[in-house]
Amino acid sequence: MAGNTFGKLFTLTTFGESHGPALGGVVDGCPPGLPLTEADLQVDLDRRKPGTSRHTTQRREADQVRILSGVFEGRTTGTPIGLVIENTDQRSKDYSKIKGQFRPAHADYTYMHKYGVRDYRGGGRSSARETAIRVAAGAIARKYLAERLDVKVRGYLSQLGPIRAEAFDWDQVSQNPFFCPDAAKVPEMEDYMDALRKEGNSIGARINVVADQVPPGLGEPVFDRLDAELAHALMSINAVKGVEIGAGFEAVTQKGTEHRDEMTPEGFLSNQAGGVLGGISTGQPLTASIALKPTSSLRLSGRSIDTAGAESEVITTGRHDPCVGIRATPIAEAMMALVLMDHYLRQRGQNADVTTTTPDIENRQ
Amino acid sequence: MAGNTFGKLFTLTTFGESHGPALGGVVDGCPPGLPLTEADLQVDLDRRKPGTSRHTTQRREADQVRILSGVFEGRTTGTPIGLVIENTDQRSKDYSKIKGQFRPAHADYTYMHKYGVRDYRGGGRSSARETAIRVAAGAIARKYLAERLDVKVRGYLSQLGPIRAEAFDWDQVSQNPFFCPDAAKVPEMEDYMDALRKEGNSIGARINVVADQVPPGLGEPVFDRLDAELAHALMSINAVKGVEIGAGFEAVTQKGTEHRDEMTPEGFLSNQAGGVLGGISTGQPLTASIALKPTSSLRLSGRSIDTAGAESEVITTGRHDPCVGIRATPIAEAMMALVLMDHYLRQRGQNADVTTTTPDIENRQ
Amino acid sequence: MAGNTFGKLFTLTTFGESHGPALGGVVDGCPPGLPLTEADLQVDLDRRKPGTSRHTTQRREADQVRILSGVFEGRTTGTPIGLVIENTDQRSKDYSKIKGQFRPAHADYTYMHKYGVRDYRGGGRSSARETAIRVAAGAIARKYLAERLDVKVRGYLSQLGPIRAEAFDWDQVSQNPFFCPDAAKVPEMEDYMDALRKEGNSIGARINVVADQVPPGLGEPVFDRLDAELAHALMSINAVKGVEIGAGFEAVTQKGTEHRDEMTPEGFLSNQAGGVLGGISTGQPLTASIALKPTSSLRLSGRSIDTAGAESEVITTGRHDPCVGIRATPIAEAMMALVLMDHYLRQRGQNADVTTTTPDIENRQ
Amino acid sequence: MAGNTFGKLFTLTTFGESHGPALGGVVDGCPPGLPLTEADLQVDLDRRKPGTSRHTTQRREADQVRILSGVFEGRTTGTPIGLVIENTDQRSKDYSKIKGQFRPAHADYTYMHKYGVRDYRGGGRSSARETAIRVAAGAIARKYLAERLDVKVRGYLSQLGPIRAEAFDWDQVSQNPFFCPDAAKVPEMEDYMDALRKEGNSIGARINVVADQVPPGLGEPVFDRLDAELAHALMSINAVKGVEIGAGFEAVTQKGTEHRDEMTPEGFLSNQAGGVLGGISTGQPLTASIALKPTSSLRLSGRSIDTAGAESEVITTGRHDPCVGIRATPIAEAMMALVLMDHYLRQRGQNADVTTTTPDIENRQ
Repeated sequence: MAGNTFGKLFTLTTFGESHGPALGGVVDGCPPGLPLTEADLQVDLDRRKPGTSRHTTQRREADQVRILSGVFEGRTTGTPIGLVIENTDQRSKDYSKIKGQFRPAHADYTYMHKYGVRDYRGGGRSSARETAIRVAAGAIARKYLAERLDVKVRGYLSQLGPIRAEAFDWDQVSQNPFFCPDAAKVPEMEDYMDALRKEGNSIGARINVVADQVPPGLGEPVFDRLDAELAHALMSINAVKGVEIGAGFEAVTQKGTEHRDEMTPEGFLSNQAGGVLGGISTGQPLTASIALKPTSSLRLSGRSIDTAGAESEVITTGRHDPCVGIRATPIAEAMMALVLMDHYLRQRGQNADVTTTTPDIENRQ
Repeated sequence: MAGNTFGKLFTLTTFGESHGPALGGVVDGCPPGLPLTEADLQVDLDRRKPGTSRHTTQRREADQVRILSGVFEGRTTGTPIGLVIENTDQRSKDYSKIKGQFRPAHADYTYMHKYGVRDYRGGGRSSARETAIRVAAGAIARKYLAERLDVKVRGYLSQLGPIRAEAFDWDQVSQNPFFCPDAAKVPEMEDYMDALRKEGNSIGARINVVADQVPPGLGEPVFDRLDAELAHALMSINAVKGVEIGAGFEAVTQKGTEHRDEMTPEGFLSNQAGGVLGGISTGQPLTASIALKPTSSLRLSGRSIDTAGAESEVITTGRHDPCVGIRATPIAEAMMALVLMDHYLRQRGQNADVTTTTPDIENRQ
Repeated sequence: MAGNTFGKLFTLTTFGESHGPALGGVVDGCPPGLPLTEADLQVDLDRRKPGTSRHTTQRREADQVRILSGVFEGRTTGTPIGLVIENTDQRSKDYSKIKGQFRPAHADYTYMHKYGVRDYRGGGRSSARETAIRVAAGAIARKYLAERLDVKVRGYLSQLGPIRAEAFDWDQVSQNPFFCPDAAKVPEMEDYMDALRKEGNSIGARINVVADQVPPGLGEPVFDRLDAELAHALMSINAVKGVEIGAGFEAVTQKGTEHRDEMTPEGFLSNQAGGVLGGISTGQPLTASIALKPTSSLRLSGRSIDTAGAESEVITTGRHDPCVGIRATPIAEAMMALVLMDHYLRQRGQNADVTTTTPDIENRQ
Repeated sequence: MAGNTFGKLFTLTTFGESHGPALGGVVDGCPPGLPLTEADLQVDLDRRKPGTSRHTTQRREADQVRILSGVFEGRTTGTPIGLVIENTDQRSKDYSKIKGQFRPAHADYTYMHKYGVRDYRGGGRSSARETAIRVAAGAIARKYLAERLDVKVRGYLSQLGPIRAEAFDWDQVSQNPFFCPDAAKVPEMEDYMDALRKEGNSIGARINVVADQVPPGLGEPVFDRLDAELAHALMSINAVKGVEIGAGFEAVTQKGTEHRDEMTPEGFLSNQAGGVLGGISTGQPLTASIALKPTSSLRLSGRSIDTAGAESEVITTGRHDPCVGIRATPIAEAMMALVLMDHYLRQRGQNADVTTTTPDIENRQ
C-alpha cells in the first residue's frame, strides 16, 4: 500500500494539502448499524480546531466536515464513509517567500528530495492540517468503541515544556485550552505561552492517552502487536519524537520485581505494562505517552540553504502554533481509537470462536 | 494481513514456537543478484545466540539457519527466501508446572484470553526466540544495504539498569558481551549482573540503533512515515516499552531554536531530528533508542492466579536472560534494516522518475 | 484491508452510493511530475457517462470530476489525489417501492444478509455508478502509461448478445455508441437494442481490452501474477461473469503445439498467451476478454420475495441500461490500466537494479 | 506486499523452487482450536501428487509435509502454521541443456526479463510444484470450513481436450485418475492420453469447482468481491487462461429474463449467478470453471531463441504432465477454500454485530 492508508479491517485513507481546496478521507470497514451524523464528528473536530485560544494558530478554519457516503437514514451501512472538509482560510501568499528556501526542521528539504517538487504553501501535505481528517475518522471509532464496548479513549497534556501537570482530574481537561488535568498549573502555562509568543520561540510538550475498558485479547503477535501498532499510529502524528507504553523508559532502571504487574483474584496490583502483555491487551487501561517537538516555524531567524544550495536566513511568518502539542490531544485520542477499532475487528474475525474460560479478573490500574 | 508479516515490498513472515520443532520465515521481495550464503546470516545469528556468556540464558541453541529457496548459484533470484532454524535444546518439562498458572508480566494471560489455548512451553510464540528469524532476515537486508547503498546499521547498549555508557567507541561494542561502547563500564556491568543473578532478579536496559549513509527521501507520508514504521518495528520486539527518534523525549523541554537542525551548504549543524523530517529521511544518520523492560521470569516468588482464577504463587525456574536487553542489540539492528530496505524499494518504486536537483548537502551528526 | 481499495503501490480507494450526495476516491502512489488536469479525467468520464445515446440509461449525470489534492501548478506532487463527483440527477423516489423487495439477480438480498441494512436507492453501493471513479482514476494511470512508457490501453465491444463484431478497425470504436470495431454491424446492433427496449428485456455482451507496448517483466509470481491481478480487477466490475487472458477457454481444446507461442529473433510468431507467461508480461500485447451478464433491472415481471420472506412480483421501473456491457468498455480499460500501473511501480521497486541482457525481441501479435 | 502472499486475515505465503531443497509456506490467521495433524494435509497432497498414474509426470515425490509450528497437542493455537515439503526426486541435470534457451510458452523468457537471472532447473519458482503447498494450506481451510461451517469444496474435470464429461456423479470423481465425474468417458480419456503421449504432444482441460453450503454474506465490495478474489485465486494457478463464475461466458448471449435467478419462499429457481450477487455470496452453491492450457514442455521440436538472441530449436525432455489439467482439481479446490476461509473471517470481523432478519431461503441450484 502506498502510505496514506492506516489499518487493515478498519482503515482510514486521507488526502489533502494545507492550502489545497479540501482535506478528505475514506473510512472503510465501519460495521453497519452505528448511528452517525456529521455532528458526532464535529465535536472532536472543534476540540482540535485552530484559533480557539490565543495560544494556538490564528488561522480561522471552520473545519466543517461533510459525510458523503456510507450513512443511510442516520446509520452506517457498512460501506465506505467518505469525508470532506473544505479549506477556507488559506493565505497562500504568506508562503511565496519560502518557495525557494528550505526551512530548518520542516519537511521542505525531504519532500523535495523525495518527490522533486513540493507544494510549499503552508507545508502542503506535511502540514498537521491533515490530522483534521484523522480526528473526524477517530470520532467514528470512538463512537463505536464507546457505544458498543464501553471503551473510553481520552487524552491530556501532561507536560508543557518545563511545566508538568501534577494534580490529576479528568474533569479539568476540557476546562482549559491546554487539555491540562491540573487546574493549578494553567495560569503558569498561560504565562509561559505568552512569554514564548513574545519571544517568537516555540516549545515541546508531552501528551498522555488512555483507553479504559479495553477488552482483553486485542493485538496480533508478532509484528502487529497492539503496542507496536499504537507506536506506529502515534509516531505518525506530526512532530512526535517518542512513544512510551506503560512504564516506558522508566523500565530501563526497573528491576523485574518492580516492573511485573502481579495478579490476584481481585485484579492486577499495578499497571507497569500499560495494558499490554506479549502485544495483546490485558483488559487493564491502555496507556501511552508521546513527546512532541517544538514547532519549527519561528519568527527567530535560522540558518539554512535555498533550493540552489546557497546559504540563506529563514524567518517564518504566517500563522502557527507556538506549541503543536497543545492541539495534539484529540489527534492522539483519534489514533488510539483507530488502532483499537481495527484490532477489535481483527480479533473477532480471527478468534470469534474462542470460548475461553480464562478468568476475567477485575482490572485496576 | 494476519499479524506475522512485516513490510510491504520487502516482507518478512515468521513462524515458530520456542519449544516447537523449528523456527522459520520467508523473506519476500529481495532484489535478485545479491550474493548470499547461510554464513552471511550466521554472523548475526551468532551475535544474538543464547549461551555465549554467563550473563545470558544458558539454553544452548546452535541457531543454525538453512536457506531453503530463493538463492541459486550463490545469488538471490528475486523469489522468496525460505529460512528454517531447528530447535535443538528444548527442555519442555521445565514448564509443566506453569501450565496451570499465569506468570505475572508474561503473555500467558493474554494469549489465553485471545486464543483460548496456549503453548505454555517456554512462552510458545510469545518467546523472544522468534526474533532469531528476524535477525536472519535482517542480515539479508543489512547485506543489501551495505553492499548496494553503503548504509551501515549498527546498535549498542547505552544503559544497563542504572549504569550508562558514557564514553563511545564503536570498536568496543563487539569486544564485550553487553554490546557496550564504553569499555570502562564493562566491569561495573559484570558485577551488577553477577549480583542480580545471585539475587534472582532482572533489570531493564536501553539500546540505541543508528543507520549511517541513509539516502534522503525514504519514508511514505502520512501513515507510513519512516519514523512511524521504525517505531512499529522496534516496539514489536519483545520487552520494548518505549521508542525515541532523534531527541526523543528531550524534545518535550526543548525550544524551537534548540531543536531545529540548522542547515548550511556544508551540512546540517545538528541532528535533533534523528535523520527524519516529515516522515522522510534527511540523509543524516537515522537514530533511535529503545527501552527494554526487565525479564519477567524470576526465581523470586510473585503473586498471581491460576487458570481457574485462584490465588497462586509463581516462581519461574527454567533458563532465562536476567537482562533481555543484552541480546537485543542485533534484533534492533535487524528491525531497522528491514524498515530501511522496505522503504528503499518503495521509494524507488514510486519515485524512480524523480530527477531532483535538490542540493545534497553533506550531512553531519 | 477492507474491500474498497485496489492496488499495492498505486492504489485506488473509492466511496459513494448511487443516490448519495457524491462519489469519490483517492489515488495514492501516483509518481510526481505528471501533468494532470480535471480535463484529462473528463475525457474518459464522458465516454462512460450515461445518457449519451438512446441505448443507455436516460439518467443525466454530468459526471463532473473535481481534483481536491495531489496536483500543484498543473503537475502531480506524489501525494494522494482526492477525487469527487457530485450526484445531481438522483430520482430516489423511483425506488421506494422496491424498499421491501429483493429484486432477482440484484445485490439486494446479499447486501441485506451481509450488512443487515441497505441503501435501496438505485442499488446504493452495488450500483455500477461507483465505476465512474474507477474511470477517473484509470485516466490518471492511462495518462502516465501513455506519456512515460508509450503503453496504450484500449477496449472494444466484441459481441452484443448474438451479434459478433467480425471486421476490426480501432478507428471505428469511437464512432458508434457501442464501442464496436465493426462499422457494418452497428445498424444490426441498433435494431437489436431497439427491439429489446420495446420488449422490456436486457442482453449480455463481451468486451475485449488490449494494452500495447507493455514492458516485459511486469507481474509478481506467484499470487500477484499480472494475469491473476487482471482477472481480479476485471471480475470486480459489476456484471462480469467471466475473464479470459489470451486464448482463454479455447486453450481447453488446444494441443501444446497449437498453443505455444514460438519465438524467433524477429519476434513471437503468435500470442495465444495474451502477453503473459508465468504471470509476467512478455512484451507482447496484453489481451483480455470479459463476459457481462444482462442487466437485471427489467420491466418484465419476475418472481421474488419481499423482506418478510413472502412471495412477491418484481417489476423494475427507474432508468437502466438494457445492456450494461455497452458502457463497460471504458471501465475495463481503466481496470487494466490500474493493474499495469501498479505492477510497473512494483517491478521498478523490486527489480530496478536488474540490468538484464535478455534479448528484447520484437513483439508481434 | 511482495507477490508470494495470498489473503488478508487467513493468509498463505509460499516459497520454494522445483529443484531447490524444499517447498514451504506459512498459513497465518487460522483460528485456534481446530484439530489438525499432518495426515489431514497428506490426504489432499496425495490426490495432487505426481506419478500416481501413467497419465501424469513420472517424477516420484512423496510430498510428505511437516507441520513446524502453530499446532499444540493436536490443535491449532492461532499462531502461524509453518509447512515444509522436502524435494527428493530432482533430476536437475535434465535441464542443463535448456540453461541457454528460452522454451516457448514457458516462463523462462519472462523471468529472465524480470529478474536478470533464473533458476532454470525444472522451471524453478514458475513450476507448478509450488502448488503442493497451496494444496496443503487449502486442506487446513477445507477442514475448518467442513467442520465448523459444513461447507464442502469439491472439484472435477469437466473436459479433457475435446472430450466432455456428460453424466455427472460426484462418487465417480475419486474413482479414476482424471477426476472425471462421468465413468463412461474414462476409457475414451485413457485412449486419448495414450495417443497424445505417443505423439509427444499435450492438451488443455477444463476444471469445475463447487462449494456447497456457503454462508450468505461473504465477499467485500467493491474490489474484494468474492467472485473477484476467486478469479484472482484461480487465475494464479499455473496454466490457467480463463475463469468463469456461474453462467460465465454464456451470459453474453443470455437475456435478462434467462439469466436472473428468480426467488420464491422455497428458494432460488436457478443459479446462473454461481452463488454470488454484487460480489457477495447468496448461500447457493458457489460455482466456478477454469480453462487450463496444454503443457508447454513437449518432445516435439519448437522454434525459439537462445539467451544470446539467436535462433534455436527446443525439445523438452525431462518428466512432464501431458495434461496439467489432470492434477489441477485439488489445486483449484484449495484456492477456492482459501478464498472462502479468508472471506469468512473478514465477514465475521466486520459484520459480526449484524443480526439480520433477512429471510434465509432454502437454496437450490
